[in-house]
Amino acid sequence: MLFHVRMNVKLPASMPAEEAARLKQVEKEYSQRLQREGKWRHIWRIAGQYANVSIFDVDSVEELHTLLTSLPLFPYMQIETMPLCRHPSSVREDDR
Amino acid sequence: MLFHVRMNVKLPASMPAEEAARLKQVEKEYSQRLQREGKWRHIWRIAGQYANVSIFDVDSVEELHTLLTSLPLFPYMQIETMPLCRHPSSVREDDR
Amino acid sequence: MLFHVRMNVKLPASMPAEEAARLKQVEKEYSQRLQREGKWRHIWRIAGQYANVSIFDVDSVEELHTLLTSLPLFPYMQIETMPLCRHPSSVREDDR
Amino acid sequence: MLFHVRMNVKLPASMPAEEAARLKQVEKEYSQRLQREGKWRHIWRIAGQYANVSIFDVDSVEELHTLLTSLPLFPYMQIETMPLCRHPSSVREDDR
Amino acid sequence: MLFHVRMNVKLPASMPAEEAARLKQVEKEYSQRLQREGKWRHIWRIAGQYANVSIFDVDSVEELHTLLTSLPLFPYMQIETMPLCRHPSSVREDDR
Amino acid sequence: MLFHVRMNVKLPASMPAEEAARLKQVEKEYSQRLQREGKWRHIWRIAGQYANVSIFDVDSVEELHTLLTSLPLFPYMQIETMPLCRHPSSVREDDR
Amino acid sequence: MLFHVRMNVKLPASMPAEEAARLKQVEKEYSQRLQREGKWRHIWRIAGQYANVSIFDVDSVEELHTLLTSLPLFPYMQIETMPLCRHPSSVREDDR
Amino acid sequence: MLFHVRMNVKLPASMPAEEAARLKQVEKEYSQRLQREGKWRHIWRIAGQYANVSIFDVDSVEELHTLLTSLPLFPYMQIETMPLCRHPSSVREDDR
Amino acid sequence: MLFHVRMNVKLPASMPAEEAARLKQVEKEYSQRLQREGKWRHIWRIAGQYANVSIFDVDSVEELHTLLTSLPLFPYMQIETMPLCRHPSSVREDDR
Amino acid sequence: MLFHVRMNVKLPASMPAEEAARLKQVEKEYSQRLQREGKWRHIWRIAGQYANVSIFDVDSVEELHTLLTSLPLFPYMQIETMPLCRHPSSVREDDR
Repeated sequence: MLFHVRMNVKLPASMPAEEAARLKQVEKEYSQRLQREGKWRHIWRIAGQYANVSIFDVDSVEELHTLLTSLPLFPYMQIETMPLCRHPSSVREDDR
Repeated sequence: MLFHVRMNVKLPASMPAEEAARLKQVEKEYSQRLQREGKWRHIWRIAGQYANVSIFDVDSVEELHTLLTSLPLFPYMQIETMPLCRHPSSVREDDR
Repeated sequence: MLFHVRMNVKLPASMPAEEAARLKQVEKEYSQRLQREGKWRHIWRIAGQYANVSIFDVDSVEELHTLLTSLPLFPYMQIETMPLCRHPSSVREDDR
Repeated sequence: MLFHVRMNVKLPASMPAEEAARLKQVEKEYSQRLQREGKWRHIWRIAGQYANVSIFDVDSVEELHTLLTSLPLFPYMQIETMPLCRHPSSVREDDR
Repeated sequence: MLFHVRMNVKLPASMPAEEAARLKQVEKEYSQRLQREGKWRHIWRIAGQYANVSIFDVDSVEELHTLLTSLPLFPYMQIETMPLCRHPSSVREDDR
Repeated sequence: MLFHVRMNVKLPASMPAEEAARLKQVEKEYSQRLQREGKWRHIWRIAGQYANVSIFDVDSVEELHTLLTSLPLFPYMQIETMPLCRHPSSVREDDR
Repeated sequence: MLFHVRMNVKLPASMPAEEAARLKQVEKEYSQRLQREGKWRHIWRIAGQYANVSIFDVDSVEELHTLLTSLPLFPYMQIETMPLCRHPSSVREDDR
Repeated sequence: MLFHVRMNVKLPASMPAEEAARLKQVEKEYSQRLQREGKWRHIWRIAGQYANVSIFDVDSVEELHTLLTSLPLFPYMQIETMPLCRHPSSVREDDR
Repeated sequence: MLFHVRMNVKLPASMPAEEAARLKQVEKEYSQRLQREGKWRHIWRIAGQYANVSIFDVDSVEELHTLLTSLPLFPYMQIETMPLCRHPSSVREDDR
Repeated sequence: MLFHVRMNVKLPASMPAEEAARLKQVEKEYSQRLQREGKWRHIWRIAGQYANVSIFDVDSVEELHTLLTSLPLFPYMQIETMPLCRHPSSVREDDR
């Protein structure tokens, strides 16, 4: 079951650079693990912004919520979700 | 080169049902041809709306514009585009 | 799996009163059938508006989309959905 | 008498973790007490957000105001209310 | 129980002048009857607009909804409501 | 001459509780004095918010401005005004 | 007493050209009469738009409302008003 | 050449009162000098807000930019400009 | 003197195709004449939209207004202007 | 390939003046180097704002993203991009 997720990140100006670097590294590992497990289908950077567009494939809304709120950068993110479904014109078997 | 495209469709109430059906059929064929050519990477329906989220892979902004304005339903669409690029955390080789 | 759905209805001024009455009757029957099947958990009228707030309980986003786009009044509605999940403070067993 | 209430929570970054944990615990007890008393009919988490959608059943607007402003997290919330009434298509006797 | 109600009126350009005049007259009588009954506490014109701000005093949200949707001009109105309660600084006994 | 005024209050998180209490007390006295003088006709609390809707009756815009900017909480308020006039359907002699 | 007024004009596409020309001529005469009477202090065109910014000098909100709703183009206008008062830094005696 | 300028001022809560008073005094002198030179044609206070509406008369956009960014309070302002021109209905020779 | 202009075009659905084609041709000739005269410095299409971003170089706001309102498609356009000036970092002598 | 970029700059009030001056100097050098390389085609100041409108000419969205996120002031900017393409009415050979 697919969800379109947009994440905008805003780190506080007062966060030390090392703390920011550490958080981003943990975030990257978390994201890549979910991608390899097939939960986080796609992630793209929005050009010129500290933001991404992602496609999640989850078994339930509960799972979506758990995955998103477990993001290491969650406290510094604004997140918007949108439920997606297969488009009748789609030719890709996996886009559902 | 990737672009995030959101299309909202609004057919005029005065359009005869057959005309609408014909346009949607032509639109579907056009979309599927572009998908098979690899230009229209993904298309998902937004749940509960006559709208879609798509990912286009084009060689230039000119090509993006030509593909979008050639949509049979273009006169009845509101379109918003957003340039995307590879996310440093992405593990998919093709999401670029 | 729960979704919060808001529906705003706007019938065209040119629709004959009987056609409007007929559509609303079909809409009511459709809604009540889904409520009895447990798919449409709640429906409330927003005071002073031709609009409602509903809670749907579906097995998938696909099902949500099918139920909403099958609404007899769908062509005259603006619909917004929002995925919901169980709140950790909730004491109701069925609000999940 | 029913009200739709949306609460968005934003704790200040400077709040110590223990203080946040303590506040959330008190909030939970307060919410569950009101739920058991039938005043707070429903509470759902909005997926991916530190926010909820709730349905309150109160005897008056005064009571609604008192309940909301007594929330332990009230100083950190943005709250929007919307009066609801029974929908003519509703089949649930208690959704009024 | 008080509600703040804002009504914006937009008559269709195609409505004949006599029909508009007749509707406004019925609207006026309806409004004045409710005012005399104490249900419609206040009504003010917003300067330069075909719109008003009103205060309703009702026994329930149901009653508010019934009064508003029975307005002769309801099909041509955009209505927003906001629940009000007594302000702790108020010195007027009747503003509750 | 009537003005509709909406005041949203936002005290800084760093303000000591006693200072906030003192300011609110002064604000209350100021408000009640103006109410007794007939300048501040009505004040209602918006349910669930630290905000009010008020009706001012002033001799000039200058007076309105002076009254509002003299509010003890003015530095912490967002204020919106809207000129009101007698509604042709009003039956209250004093709502002008 | 001064009010800032912004008027956006939108004539229906179906209005015959002669009718539009006639209305604009009557509007111009009405505006110039009020300007000569000192009620309509200033009127400027917003570049590139069928819109204007005006300053009205009236004795009351009632008068402002009467002048605006008597505009020949009023049915085709969207109007926003904003009460103005003398600025403490102003050196012009007449800008009050 | 005329420009409509709206300035909203927001001084930081941490600014000492004397610094604020000093800045406002310098701002006033700067504004009055430009008014006497004819560059700053009008300035009005928006009732109930720490904001003004002004009309500037400049020889070029460059000059407008220089005058605005030289405002002592510029770092604490949000500024919006709008080019104005003579209205065909205007009877004032100087409103151009 | 430079202005940033954004034009969004919306032709009415009822306009015959030949009329639309004729208008676009006249619009093109008008635009190219102004470009050759140096008044319309740049024009770019916004990808996926019937809209453009343009840079005008005019001697006055009056001239800007005259050029824009003389556009053959003006009645079907929504236009927003923004005054521009030379950027201190610019290395192009002509971008002023 | 062209992109329209709008940058709004907001330096934190706590940044020391020398740090701000140093950052702006580095920003200027960076901008001018890109302009000389032809990557940053145009940059204009928006009158009265600490903001600019720019046109970038890049080989890919990736390059656009790299150039923008390498801006010395990037952490203090809000950036919006919009893909542009040649307008069919354009007479300039280089505006593509």
